[in-house]
Amino acid sequence: MILLTRRVTFSASHYYWNETWTAEKNATVFGRCANRNGHGHNYTLEVTVAGEPDPVTGFVVDLKWLKDVMEQEVLAAFDHRHLNLEVSEFGQGKLIPTTENIAIVAWNRLEPAIKKAAGAQLSKVRVYESQEIFAEYRGGQ
Amino acid sequence: MILLTRRVTFSASHYYWNETWTAEKNATVFGRCANRNGHGHNYTLEVTVAGEPDPVTGFVVDLKWLKDVMEQEVLAAFDHRHLNLEVSEFGQGKLIPTTENIAIVAWNRLEPAIKKAAGAQLSKVRVYESQEIFAEYRGGQ
Amino acid sequence: MILLTRRVTFSASHYYWNETWTAEKNATVFGRCANRNGHGHNYTLEVTVAGEPDPVTGFVVDLKWLKDVMEQEVLAAFDHRHLNLEVSEFGQGKLIPTTENIAIVAWNRLEPAIKKAAGAQLSKVRVYESQEIFAEYRGGQ
Amino acid sequence: MILLTRRVTFSASHYYWNETWTAEKNATVFGRCANRNGHGHNYTLEVTVAGEPDPVTGFVVDLKWLKDVMEQEVLAAFDHRHLNLEVSEFGQGKLIPTTENIAIVAWNRLEPAIKKAAGAQLSKVRVYESQEIFAEYRGGQ
Amino acid sequence: MILLTRRVTFSASHYYWNETWTAEKNATVFGRCANRNGHGHNYTLEVTVAGEPDPVTGFVVDLKWLKDVMEQEVLAAFDHRHLNLEVSEFGQGKLIPTTENIAIVAWNRLEPAIKKAAGAQLSKVRVYESQEIFAEYRGGQ
Amino acid sequence: MILLTRRVTFSASHYYWNETWTAEKNATVFGRCANRNGHGHNYTLEVTVAGEPDPVTGFVVDLKWLKDVMEQEVLAAFDHRHLNLEVSEFGQGKLIPTTENIAIVAWNRLEPAIKKAAGAQLSKVRVYESQEIFAEYRGGQ
Repeated sequence: MILLTRRVTFSASHYYWNETWTAEKNATVFGRCANRNGHGHNYTLEVTVAGEPDPVTGFVVDLKWLKDVMEQEVLAAFDHRHLNLEVSEFGQGKLIPTTENIAIVAWNRLEPAIKKAAGAQLSKVRVYESQEIFAEYRGGQ
Repeated sequence: MILLTRRVTFSASHYYWNETWTAEKNATVFGRCANRNGHGHNYTLEVTVAGEPDPVTGFVVDLKWLKDVMEQEVLAAFDHRHLNLEVSEFGQGKLIPTTENIAIVAWNRLEPAIKKAAGAQLSKVRVYESQEIFAEYRGGQ
Repeated sequence: MILLTRRVTFSASHYYWNETWTAEKNATVFGRCANRNGHGHNYTLEVTVAGEPDPVTGFVVDLKWLKDVMEQEVLAAFDHRHLNLEVSEFGQGKLIPTTENIAIVAWNRLEPAIKKAAGAQLSKVRVYESQEIFAEYRGGQ
Repeated sequence: MILLTRRVTFSASHYYWNETWTAEKNATVFGRCANRNGHGHNYTLEVTVAGEPDPVTGFVVDLKWLKDVMEQEVLAAFDHRHLNLEVSEFGQGKLIPTTENIAIVAWNRLEPAIKKAAGAQLSKVRVYESQEIFAEYRGGQ
Repeated sequence: MILLTRRVTFSASHYYWNETWTAEKNATVFGRCANRNGHGHNYTLEVTVAGEPDPVTGFVVDLKWLKDVMEQEVLAAFDHRHLNLEVSEFGQGKLIPTTENIAIVAWNRLEPAIKKAAGAQLSKVRVYESQEIFAEYRGGQ
Repeated sequence: MILLTRRVTFSASHYYWNETWTAEKNATVFGRCANRNGHGHNYTLEVTVAGEPDPVTGFVVDLKWLKDVMEQEVLAAFDHRHLNLEVSEFGQGKLIPTTENIAIVAWNRLEPAIKKAAGAQLSKVRVYESQEIFAEYRGGQ
């Protein structure tokens, strides 16, 4: 079993805000992240698939195909976007776009598309908000 | 003469938009950066001062002091902010917050504060929007 | 289950020396690391907690709180210190401050403080001595 | 149990080519990687061993010894070499030197040499072809 | 005056060989780099242009345009290629593809295309062979 | 003219202390850096030489030779050493081993050895104490 990983980056805005709280409570809990004008990051999305290398190609999956899946399923929706305002999973305050939740949403978008590829399965999704902070999700295990 | 450099990072949102243009022209010229919801980056601000090391301390400037200046003059206004909406130099479409203009604005904010410190002068300001893109300004030379 | 990670850095001195050996044996086994004047590193401490994102905040833990814990439990004792001479676990030659042992000591300092936070548990501690060398500890599993 | 990791880099050429296919099919599947003149990378080899720190030295393994093993078993054969033409496991089109297969071949070369060292075992081998792509192998588990 | 920089990466093979020397002399001077099967690197090409930000766009140059120029003038010829065998400037042993010469050749390819862009001029080209080695060229100054 | 740069790293301890001051004044000015047990860093030494590529080799200088010079002139004295206690220029409190002064001392050690190499001259020395702080010296210009 090989774990094969592809990294891409995207730039997005977000803020942290719980619609059921007062502005004061949002400011207390979320600090500067509660600024409703938004702030942003260069995120890194790291996707790992698990499988055996195909003896014919030497590939677990074709990395060009994997990058295309990452771009279609995640970057087309997230890159150069405001996550709270433009990504459906986070819309209307449904889900706060923390690094943790971005990793879960990315997994949920990627997993069905990767499952269709014979011989490999999504193993983990890691999202870096910065060099100091990252979250990793391995599905509902 | 020694060039001494301090790096800090900040997270901010921005968009590119020329108020005198149509939405179509903005989209054509600026592409995805014209999204008015904003997108964001982890910026790196790199400030270089020039001078002789003080024989008593070995310092060109005290780097803790320099970091404080960078935080007071730039990060207090830029970090976790939307540059177009919250930084006066970029407000009301006066100036588009490209990496080039962010470097010039940071210089203009830092230069007077650093000039007051005997024995050192601001030499250059470099701003990284990402690992692939950066702008450097050395004042009105 | 999400794995959420925070990185910080600290600067410290250390040397490798087994008090029960001769100087010759220390020099043979530990080479340049046996220099009793000490040498130093910029260490990176990477702490990973495991848990479910709180539906109210989107956080597994508040990362500001986690950073405070890392600073109080580890950096207050290790940063800008000589590990052999100033950190109790390594004092009087009790334990050699290799990267492996630094990771274990950091775990033992962090685990009780993190256990008190409802909903998350310490999952792993990784310590980088340099970009080429790192040790990871997951507790007494 | 501690996981202790050592990183080294090497520079090598390779190409992707399946001898049983036509040139057209190779070009279709492998794209620019099918160029038989070869292209190259700065690879990073990351080797992780698992064990308990020796109470006498504080080492899981002596990292100088581990680096020597990595150089003798892998870098002596791979560094500044053309993998398809000069590394026996990949010769005569036997195995395509994808990142996945390089990780497996490195494991197979390292595992017997590390097994001889009392108290530690090879835990994983990770190979980076670039900052965007890496493969990890943990043996025939 | 602003210096604006764009980085891209490419993967290529090369070797060092002086056609007028014996194999022995090539091996003595160039060591492992004289292996005629070639070895390779992930190169980073860093291109800096100098100019004033256009008051209408905030751009010294459009970075998408600059990236296109870099891809057309340099990467189309260098990426996934064997520099000695496939790049005309280095062909038939005319010029040894050292990092120094790659920087000069990249400058000579980029300078005419950038000169056509009003308001900016090529300022420097930096080529990294690895994180440890890089060469910078500023034209025939 | 080409600027050719080589990077190496070294690990060292140091502290900041002015022998003519009281302990209180040292603590006030130097903060945690005044701890006389020392603390340490992974320093990066970046040496740039300027010259024309030799038409016979393509080299400004042989980078293996340059690395040897850096190791003989600087690393042999600095690596795995306590700079205040073991490097003559900093001994007996003569000079405080700030990043600025380390760059000047490294220049003074390297410049005579590089001057002997025909066709190249030392252009600049840059020393990184960390990713956030670095000093650059270009000689007594």
